[in-house]
Amino acid sequence: MKNYNGIIDRYFEHLPIKDRANIITLKEGNTPLIRAHNIERQLGITLEIYLKYEGMNPTGSFKDRGMTVAVSAARENGSSAVICASTGNTSAAAAAYAARAGMRCVVLIPNNAVATGKLAQAVAYGARVIAVEGNFDAALKIVRELSKRHPITLVNSINPNRIEGQKTAAFEICDELLEAPDYLAIPVGNAGNISAYWKGFKEYHSNKIISGLPRMLGFQAAGAAPIVEGRIIENPQTIATAIRIGNPASWHTAVAAVSESGGVIHKVTDEEILEAYSLLSKKEGIFAEPASAASLAGVLKLWRQGYFKHGGRVVCVLTGHGLKDPDTAIKSGSPPAVIPAEVGALEREIYG
Amino acid sequence: MKNYNGIIDRYFEHLPIKDRANIITLKEGNTPLIRAHNIERQLGITLEIYLKYEGMNPTGSFKDRGMTVAVSAARENGSSAVICASTGNTSAAAAAYAARAGMRCVVLIPNNAVATGKLAQAVAYGARVIAVEGNFDAALKIVRELSKRHPITLVNSINPNRIEGQKTAAFEICDELLEAPDYLAIPVGNAGNISAYWKGFKEYHSNKIISGLPRMLGFQAAGAAPIVEGRIIENPQTIATAIRIGNPASWHTAVAAVSESGGVIHKVTDEEILEAYSLLSKKEGIFAEPASAASLAGVLKLWRQGYFKHGGRVVCVLTGHGLKDPDTAIKSGSPPAVIPAEVGALEREIYG
Repeated sequence: MKNYNGIIDRYFEHLPIKDRANIITLKEGNTPLIRAHNIERQLGITLEIYLKYEGMNPTGSFKDRGMTVAVSAARENGSSAVICASTGNTSAAAAAYAARAGMRCVVLIPNNAVATGKLAQAVAYGARVIAVEGNFDAALKIVRELSKRHPITLVNSINPNRIEGQKTAAFEICDELLEAPDYLAIPVGNAGNISAYWKGFKEYHSNKIISGLPRMLGFQAAGAAPIVEGRIIENPQTIATAIRIGNPASWHTAVAAVSESGGVIHKVTDEEILEAYSLLSKKEGIFAEPASAASLAGVLKLWRQGYFKHGGRVVCVLTGHGLKDPDTAIKSGSPPAVIPAEVGALEREIYG
Repeated sequence: MKNYNGIIDRYFEHLPIKDRANIITLKEGNTPLIRAHNIERQLGITLEIYLKYEGMNPTGSFKDRGMTVAVSAARENGSSAVICASTGNTSAAAAAYAARAGMRCVVLIPNNAVATGKLAQAVAYGARVIAVEGNFDAALKIVRELSKRHPITLVNSINPNRIEGQKTAAFEICDELLEAPDYLAIPVGNAGNISAYWKGFKEYHSNKIISGLPRMLGFQAAGAAPIVEGRIIENPQTIATAIRIGNPASWHTAVAAVSESGGVIHKVTDEEILEAYSLLSKKEGIFAEPASAASLAGVLKLWRQGYFKHGGRVVCVLTGHGLKDPDTAIKSGSPPAVIPAEVGALEREIYG
């Protein structure tokens, strides 16, 4: 088995880095594609459901794919500092890759709206963390302006290198299935990732590595569904903090991905997201963050509506690890029983 | 690239599972080995330091290696329930693999002594979590007794299948380096993992896959160092909760690994652990839980004492992901500055 050295090394000819010496990697990518046999069986679903578990990237989310390319490109271009606005996952990835590259990193987060694990990461990786009195969209606006005025590389997904890196997840799915899936289901927040997957599938298709293309199924949270509703949402609300975005940067490319592929974009409620979140961990042993579960929630919703008439293979992208947001998991369960340290007490607790 | 299907599939002939149909996997293992160039450079160290980042297992720790084997074996033997005592990482792994296998899982944790992320995981994966008024050692004692009286499989590391699975990390290191490293540095808590690595190296050596063996360097936290001090510690104390164990189950095999290999077992203080923890994330972009950093802390301490006279390659095992314990990261940094959503305010904050 050849040693694995990250997505730029693996997909070098498809990516915009010129010199391998500039690669900054934490060996991101190569994430597992796991068949959801238990969920299929329990719900009587005659689709093949696969889970692309992007939580198994080094910082715990798919953002590492884009960030290895964005930070490597920043280094190739002689930059020594990066900046981004983030609901959490982007900041963790930016901070980690900047640390590895020896660059400064500044991250802007919406005040009081970032999950515990993610804030911990940006702090741990040594980024300068600044909380903005406003939402993600407000934070993104000011980092865009700042990066025009100062020599600091913007690494939000409007940086095209991010999308380039993220498309490699589509490559991996095709390499593993030896074909494109029939459907690709994905949570939609800032809408960069759905655009990236579609770009990846199209590139593999035009290179004749795959013969067909998937239908792209995008899912927004009901309280943060600007694309579905066709309007900017001023105060997006959802438990799925990673997709709590009211004015997506990649709105138009996301719409194009859905319409070119003959797919759909729908919204799922927080209750539907939490149902899927619970199924993933309790039935498949896969702990994903709430936003990730939007992809499975959407597939279950479409299944119940009779959308998948001809069966087929659907890949649900699980964008981040459940450890990113431990509070949601703890709140969704009951607190542990407390017993004295005696086997009799344990026996009574378990066997009644 | 052949699809990767977890450690039992990869190392089948070295492991005690008879039928591949019984494999319960989340595609654990195959974790990155990352050179710590930045730390070497910053500290002027002339060793080659590699980090085996076990936090990139599905539940975020090395425990997944042992648990895939223990739960697959439980299934092969017709068991329908598993139980363990845990400081957190074992419970997360047991709960995840039991969920995947459709088995019941009971986990006992010491009351008020388990990191946030880990408790969240056991709850999320649907395990029955019971807190014991006592420490890890007390919890382990009563699950041992219970499993003798009832048909429930004990999956602590005294279950030999756990050690079998964990030894595969040694195989991976040798497969990647094409030889054993000169030194293997590892945190020591319940002492199963150091025993497992040593078993793995010895098996590869007797199979002539490697020609030499590493010296095993084990590190306990100063407040929880029973092996180093040669006595049971009644109330172990350390920030590194994953190795806060006063009476290790694998005490004797750990001592044997160190002495047979010509290695050492030492203790490191919480301050030394936190220094290494911070270097890992801020210099290498690798966020590990505090206990993990004991391996690097120990290597830095031995380096300063002149232990590594002849240089060489040392692999530091990083046992778990930093997201397991977000509170320690947040406490170790300063809280974010809060600014209004205006580019001028951001400019003043960054550029003064």
